[in-house]
Amino acid sequence: MPATARKPDASRRSERSRRAILDAALDQVGETGYEKLTIEGIAARAGVGKQTIYRWWPSKAAVLLDAFTAVSEDAAQGQHELPDTGDLEADLKEVLRATVDELNRDVYDRPARALAAAAVTDPALAEEFNRRVLGPQLDLYVERFTAARAAGHIADDVDVRVATDLLVGPLAHRWLLRTLPMDHAYADRVVELALRGIAA
Amino acid sequence: MPATARKPDASRRSERSRRAILDAALDQVGETGYEKLTIEGIAARAGVGKQTIYRWWPSKAAVLLDAFTAVSEDAAQGQHELPDTGDLEADLKEVLRATVDELNRDVYDRPARALAAAAVTDPALAEEFNRRVLGPQLDLYVERFTAARAAGHIADDVDVRVATDLLVGPLAHRWLLRTLPMDHAYADRVVELALRGIAA
Repeated sequence: MPATARKPDASRRSERSRRAILDAALDQVGETGYEKLTIEGIAARAGVGKQTIYRWWPSKAAVLLDAFTAVSEDAAQGQHELPDTGDLEADLKEVLRATVDELNRDVYDRPARALAAAAVTDPALAEEFNRRVLGPQLDLYVERFTAARAAGHIADDVDVRVATDLLVGPLAHRWLLRTLPMDHAYADRVVELALRGIAA
Repeated sequence: MPATARKPDASRRSERSRRAILDAALDQVGETGYEKLTIEGIAARAGVGKQTIYRWWPSKAAVLLDAFTAVSEDAAQGQHELPDTGDLEADLKEVLRATVDELNRDVYDRPARALAAAAVTDPALAEEFNRRVLGPQLDLYVERFTAARAAGHIADDVDVRVATDLLVGPLAHRWLLRTLPMDHAYADRVVELALRGIAA
């Protein structure tokens, strides 16, 4: 039955094109920055026609946000919550060390910087970035802290969203504005000081 | 003695031009972003010749960093250290509330965002920005925490540079990436949680 036999092939080709487009968007934005990112540039790099991109995405922002969502999902390896071994300090150190490693990887650093810089100056892009990429990441901390509060591991009066900022803010500040280098020891110090502040 | 009479006039004119150029640089970068900021644009806006700018500054980055240094100095109103009333919590709340107010002011927000976005993607500009503008601001916290540690108000083992990140990181993250709005209550919560973590 050639009709059904063709369908999986077409679907595989579509998926290959989709991944090629997302990879091309990440590579391109890392090289040129967000402002100079174009659908034409992404299409040329991915070896597809512009119309193929416009069939699936309405704008370069939409392509890039899908590309980052894919990167985040690859990094999460199917895990959609933070580790919860019952040892909050150990769990958060594991997560923040992994975050430091990710921020220090060149393949992540350049496109992530280009996107973050665009969000700094473009409120509409920032809103989408928060809704699609950053918000869901921060929610994982909020959920972990909420569980820790229910288990009596952090104080009852702690605002779990502010506690989240206390953990991710220092790393983001150091990374975005390049104030100082970051390593695992830094991640550990941030967790230790922040946890002393919110401990039960 | 016309020679000495002319000199103060020339000096006043120079100072007027210098301020006009710095103001024009801030206005211009707020409108166009750093990438599209040009010496020509600054000169036209300030009503001076390009050569006047090049006589004093080698590049647009140099103009902009001087402009920001001037803004910071105006905001500091001659105070080159954080308040030290002996009540660390009250002092830090005052400083962080003022920071929130500054970040929420339109006149500061747009040029500051343009400069921060440029620092995110341009390592050389980031280095100058840290050396000239951000580093000296962070040093004020380090000095205040060092005094508090000497006075026994925070724990002996606290790394005062990490403690600084714990205070400024959450505000910077929320402001730069626009995750959520910021107000005085937020500044207070950050200070309270961070101080619980570093208290003696």
